[in-house]
Amino acid sequence: MADSPAPIIAYYNGFDSRGKWAEWLRRAANGFDVRVWPGEDVSKARYAVVWAPPPEFFRQATRAQAVLNLGAGVEHLLGISEIPAHVPIIRLSDAGMAEQMCEYALCVALRILRDMDVYEQDRSAGRWRPRAPRAKHELAIGVLGLGVLGARVADHLSSHGFAVSGWSSSRKNLTSITCEVGGTGFDAILTRSELLINLLPLTSETRGILDRSTFEKLRPGAVVVNLARGGHLSEGDLVAALDSGRLRGAYLDVTEKEPLPAGHPFWTHPKVFLTPHVAAQTLPHLAIEQVVANIGRLERGEQPLNVIDRTRQY
Amino acid sequence: MADSPAPIIAYYNGFDSRGKWAEWLRRAANGFDVRVWPGEDVSKARYAVVWAPPPEFFRQATRAQAVLNLGAGVEHLLGISEIPAHVPIIRLSDAGMAEQMCEYALCVALRILRDMDVYEQDRSAGRWRPRAPRAKHELAIGVLGLGVLGARVADHLSSHGFAVSGWSSSRKNLTSITCEVGGTGFDAILTRSELLINLLPLTSETRGILDRSTFEKLRPGAVVVNLARGGHLSEGDLVAALDSGRLRGAYLDVTEKEPLPAGHPFWTHPKVFLTPHVAAQTLPHLAIEQVVANIGRLERGEQPLNVIDRTRQY
Repeated sequence: MADSPAPIIAYYNGFDSRGKWAEWLRRAANGFDVRVWPGEDVSKARYAVVWAPPPEFFRQATRAQAVLNLGAGVEHLLGISEIPAHVPIIRLSDAGMAEQMCEYALCVALRILRDMDVYEQDRSAGRWRPRAPRAKHELAIGVLGLGVLGARVADHLSSHGFAVSGWSSSRKNLTSITCEVGGTGFDAILTRSELLINLLPLTSETRGILDRSTFEKLRPGAVVVNLARGGHLSEGDLVAALDSGRLRGAYLDVTEKEPLPAGHPFWTHPKVFLTPHVAAQTLPHLAIEQVVANIGRLERGEQPLNVIDRTRQY
Repeated sequence: MADSPAPIIAYYNGFDSRGKWAEWLRRAANGFDVRVWPGEDVSKARYAVVWAPPPEFFRQATRAQAVLNLGAGVEHLLGISEIPAHVPIIRLSDAGMAEQMCEYALCVALRILRDMDVYEQDRSAGRWRPRAPRAKHELAIGVLGLGVLGARVADHLSSHGFAVSGWSSSRKNLTSITCEVGGTGFDAILTRSELLINLLPLTSETRGILDRSTFEKLRPGAVVVNLARGGHLSEGDLVAALDSGRLRGAYLDVTEKEPLPAGHPFWTHPKVFLTPHVAAQTLPHLAIEQVVANIGRLERGEQPLNVIDRTRQY
């Protein structure tokens, strides 16, 4: 195959089994030569557009001047030593995900507020037992992570009248919620929260942050919601805390291994609610729009948006 | 017991087993002699404040000039021939119920939008299968009944971006939703709805309105939510429509007999979600505030608010 005169985009997306995203990218990246790896030669590609690529990809796409990730989380790229330090890694910002996260979080918050989980248990036991209603301001919610997604979720729940606090590693000032920061702030948010929603990036600092010591600081009978990454959660500690009655339930959209392996306790645990990493799915047209706009910026010599900080890991 | 110089309120509330409501009513109805039936003499009572009283109550409280119901639904009072035709029956309006109805309806709508019921089935089957997300405007919701509660619920769901239509027996004009009326309108709303929420009053016209012919007009795989009265629903028809796969699920807060009798299929049906008549509970302080304000109006010779129309039956 002769070299194309158009700049080359190397494309890898493990989820795009039917080639739909590749087709959309080709249509949107007008004037570029989009090559799909594995199969096509990407050795002269100027840009790499990827989702969860294997390291081998970067052993071929050695001339890529930027890596554009088709998602918000970049933890799978950070471990790939084949990406040179000077090559910017660019993540998606939102792309329809914030609204979906808000829907998921609100659905869980209302379910807990209105004791829907308790009524399900009552039905199983043949019990007809009305319980007194609570107002939304009586349900204290803690949101871990106040990035684009966390801030939107915290604000959304607060606008519905829930008592929301948020925690982040660097100081954030959101008008609608109480913001906490650092180790003392972390303990403060746990002590007060009945519903804890994790939307942190996965870094070496946050790996395993949802563990036994965290669960023990939460209000007794609290609910844990993990909408970020499976690596944030110590799965064994969670099962123990559910079994002991320390926690009321867990809503998990992510797991350490995905798909969840057969025989894993999360498949059958009565206090676990599980969804297969769908809380916020990248919407193709919005994602591709962002990627192509950033490639345009790079082509014009401008600074791209949403470049990650490798030291901070997100 | 000598007659009290203060006007007498006869009070019956089958749910007030611990006498808390009686206490609150006494405190709020300052200057009145609140007498609890059965037990105390209510034969000279000027007002009857009740929830679901037996007919015997009215054989004693024969001089009551108004019946103030501690709820929105009055169908249990309409069947009591002991209440003279000229005595106004007054119902509660809202009293914290609209907000609770909104919470319940939104919780179900988000659950259906985000396929939470499907993911629960997937988990039971050990399936990890992500499904494409839908936008809220793609979920068509029909609200039956556009009274205080129905209108609030319809407006709330519409403000979240769902595609909402409403139906009522008399023409309503709400700005946020499509309003339908009459028989043609009823069919129109069913044909378009994927989620049908019942908030009608229970009358001879609406009894059994959720039956086989209604389910067959709904979009295939629709979900039925009954937040009004058990009498609206043909329970046998519902089970058949769930079993045949015509309906995706049913969310029931009310049943024909409450508590639901042991052995009833709703206790165990896999497509039924059941709560024990808690979707909107009367909040005591707001309810008593309304009742006492209406008694004040009657004492001053003014027209009370929320008098029901016995012909219309609500």
